[in-house]
Amino acid sequence: MNFDEIYEDEKKIKRIKDHVKKIEYLRSTSNNLLYWDKVTNMPAKGIEYRAEVMSFFAGEIHRLSEDREFIELVEYFAGKDSEELDIRTLAMIRKIRKNHEYINRIPVDEYKDYINLIARAEDIWSSRDKPNDFEVIKPYLEKIIIHMRNFANYWGYEDDPYDAMLAYYETGVTVKDADAMFAELKEFTIDMLNSIRKSENKVDNSLFNGFFPKEKQREMSVDILKRTGFDFDAGRLDEGTHPTILVNSSSDVRIITSYNEHDFRPALTTALHEGGQALYEQGINPELRGMLLAESPSLVILEAIAGLYENILGRSQEFWKFYYPKLQNCFPSLEGVSEEGFYRAINAVEPSFVRMDADELTYNIHIIIRYEIEKDLINGKLKVEDIPEEWNQKYQEYLGICPPDDRLGVLQDVHWFSGYFGYFPSYVVGSIYAAQIHRTLKRELIDYENVVEEGRWIEIKTWLEENVFTHGSIYSAQELIYLVTDENLKSEYYIDYLRKKYSEIYGI
Amino acid sequence: MNFDEIYEDEKKIKRIKDHVKKIEYLRSTSNNLLYWDKVTNMPAKGIEYRAEVMSFFAGEIHRLSEDREFIELVEYFAGKDSEELDIRTLAMIRKIRKNHEYINRIPVDEYKDYINLIARAEDIWSSRDKPNDFEVIKPYLEKIIIHMRNFANYWGYEDDPYDAMLAYYETGVTVKDADAMFAELKEFTIDMLNSIRKSENKVDNSLFNGFFPKEKQREMSVDILKRTGFDFDAGRLDEGTHPTILVNSSSDVRIITSYNEHDFRPALTTALHEGGQALYEQGINPELRGMLLAESPSLVILEAIAGLYENILGRSQEFWKFYYPKLQNCFPSLEGVSEEGFYRAINAVEPSFVRMDADELTYNIHIIIRYEIEKDLINGKLKVEDIPEEWNQKYQEYLGICPPDDRLGVLQDVHWFSGYFGYFPSYVVGSIYAAQIHRTLKRELIDYENVVEEGRWIEIKTWLEENVFTHGSIYSAQELIYLVTDENLKSEYYIDYLRKKYSEIYGI
Repeated sequence: MNFDEIYEDEKKIKRIKDHVKKIEYLRSTSNNLLYWDKVTNMPAKGIEYRAEVMSFFAGEIHRLSEDREFIELVEYFAGKDSEELDIRTLAMIRKIRKNHEYINRIPVDEYKDYINLIARAEDIWSSRDKPNDFEVIKPYLEKIIIHMRNFANYWGYEDDPYDAMLAYYETGVTVKDADAMFAELKEFTIDMLNSIRKSENKVDNSLFNGFFPKEKQREMSVDILKRTGFDFDAGRLDEGTHPTILVNSSSDVRIITSYNEHDFRPALTTALHEGGQALYEQGINPELRGMLLAESPSLVILEAIAGLYENILGRSQEFWKFYYPKLQNCFPSLEGVSEEGFYRAINAVEPSFVRMDADELTYNIHIIIRYEIEKDLINGKLKVEDIPEEWNQKYQEYLGICPPDDRLGVLQDVHWFSGYFGYFPSYVVGSIYAAQIHRTLKRELIDYENVVEEGRWIEIKTWLEENVFTHGSIYSAQELIYLVTDENLKSEYYIDYLRKKYSEIYGI
Repeated sequence: MNFDEIYEDEKKIKRIKDHVKKIEYLRSTSNNLLYWDKVTNMPAKGIEYRAEVMSFFAGEIHRLSEDREFIELVEYFAGKDSEELDIRTLAMIRKIRKNHEYINRIPVDEYKDYINLIARAEDIWSSRDKPNDFEVIKPYLEKIIIHMRNFANYWGYEDDPYDAMLAYYETGVTVKDADAMFAELKEFTIDMLNSIRKSENKVDNSLFNGFFPKEKQREMSVDILKRTGFDFDAGRLDEGTHPTILVNSSSDVRIITSYNEHDFRPALTTALHEGGQALYEQGINPELRGMLLAESPSLVILEAIAGLYENILGRSQEFWKFYYPKLQNCFPSLEGVSEEGFYRAINAVEPSFVRMDADELTYNIHIIIRYEIEKDLINGKLKVEDIPEEWNQKYQEYLGICPPDDRLGVLQDVHWFSGYFGYFPSYVVGSIYAAQIHRTLKRELIDYENVVEEGRWIEIKTWLEENVFTHGSIYSAQELIYLVTDENLKSEYYIDYLRKKYSEIYGI
């Protein structure tokens, strides 16, 4: 390239970035502020106009993302040698192309049909009298599956159509990987569960029944967030119906939590889980704004960090060694419970019908069941009408319990009725990433045990910030895990972690 | 017109409306939600990105408003017979054309220079060490005046260049009208002030010194808002630094108030003044959304309603007959003060240097001084360098006090440094509108005195809603006052109202 060409290319990159900035301004306003305000502050009657405004924004974002001139500019660089572009620009181009292709390869009419179908299926699922009967929603799900199989064909895949779904959510694993990892994890979990059942070393978790005032739960949440390193000058904690985080920018990250005065665990979980995600968002290099890169590479990495804080850190003995006296100060009814008793209770294992109620160990089984079923639906090995039977049979086989009805069974999650096929595995794969990252963290952070036991948790955040958060989505999940841990993803660290923990607790 | 033509026209109207809706979505999000969030909830470090987002929105709104195809469609209808269009469509076309012309007639380069100049002038004005010395900001003001005189020429006027400024803010009066009204009002006020000075009937307002807890002030504010008819399902009350209202839609109107624990009057004033504006916004027919008509015809009418609630209603004897016992319950330190004493105190007259501290009567003099000065600046009868002398001399002559420095004198308001020439008169003209509307209200609302004395204030809102609020900006201020009161605007009702009130209080 001569200087003129370089200069022309730089002008083109500038035009791409200017366009991307606009998309980000609209996205950040709509997906975050308009939504956050809707769930926290908006008066009830504001909904009608707000819905109009949000749908306008969605249309504008789509229009800008699919703008022909913009896509042509991007395609021009797609053909370029990677040595001619810096790593950030390459990542930006890759991301724009991916976003575009996923939508673009679906014929417009089919995409519209699909959006419409999803809206109706979600509506039926969430209608106040939740249908107990799978039959009502079955015809919708059948149509959704047809679309999903078409999408897999449009998007392309090597071995299994479900690979296209896993790639869509950028989990960083293929069906082959997931099959192997999940088979091992399933076998381990079922064995462990059987041993726990047989163990005489029972766990008493009645301590979670009590009265825990809202204000005290808020105090605890703020305290934990501060200690983990959440910057309240660049974020907030608010109350809402569903725990989540909203990100206006890395300098304005808002956590939404909810308080149940009869059980402080949901608020504790949010302070760690959503709190971990919030630390991630605050730690992304602000220079990546305006390039679609100021976000995690995929949900799987965000879930990994959330899981690292919620489970690996937040259910560890070291953590409670430091924090349990503080928790007792907050909730005096815990005075009669020992630190060891509390640690065991917060790690109690008990199979449940509902995924959201599951403990850290059996949670994986809930996900693996969904993985097996959705993979076979996309493969064509399983018919929609056979899902409830398959579901109940797997719950019986793996967890030894059978849901009494569809509400506590196949109808509990909205995911499938929203078209989220390929999304569930992220939860377990995230935990596998988390364990592998944590292993490196323990090795590299001097004096790790003392850091946790002495409450110097900010040092953990600093390490994660430098090694994970700051990169935004310059790297894919797969690239990032290699960059951080010097090896590809493997599930053995996660299984080792689970084995060690539960063997000790249940004396197996 | 034949049917084909009618059909074509309807299609064009539809395209105009679709475009207007987009402008409104962006405006409502940017001017309201992004701004409201910034002043209430946004964490400190969020400002940088927020500023970027807001400036992007401003650009988009401008781009859409000046879109050539859109303007051509609008111009097509501007030539049409008014009988061919319904009244709402006519009003929408009028409004779009006006917005467009005011910007469009200014040469682009001059407009950019002007915007830049204003930004710097405001910055100097608001820089933390407010310049006490007029000299520092004088060169900016001189340039602003040159632009203003140019603008008046671009916009056009009949008699006086300042008429162009009054028309810009749609005050509904000309220089001729304002000269006459303000001369009469000035003479009356100066006479009244002299009589008050001579009166032996002094007013004690020391009762406002005390401690009035924030929570109690919030309780009072919510109570007054509810009693006047503010719908909390379609609005909120929040705390912020500067009292204002933000309107996402007529179903989502947010009042911002501030609490001074040593004086409850600011919160009381906001509950009535901003509260009155909020009732207006909630009362606009929602069908006018999407046509740029879901707002008051001009600031003058919004100020009129605010003044009606704050002063005519909120400083009346009937009002406090009902509400004073409730206020005493709220603030026990008032127990030793009689209802009559309180009514007199809340109406105490005392000349002040600062407009924002002024009482209802002398407030008009503050505005008239600004009117006289800004009119002569635009006319060319007064030079910028002579403003401070002119200012101080008028304060001495009309109010009998002379500001000790520019901070308490000519530098107290940002308006001129922001280019708001022609805006100040709205405050007094608004009061004149208010008195005239109030006179009709008293005549038409059965049993008016009892309605106020018994706290049935919602009936007042209902009357105003039906007669004023609901129309949005279908009518101009001038048209609306005729529609409501059956006569053109005249100042005598306002002067009568002031004379009666202050004569009684001060026994003149």
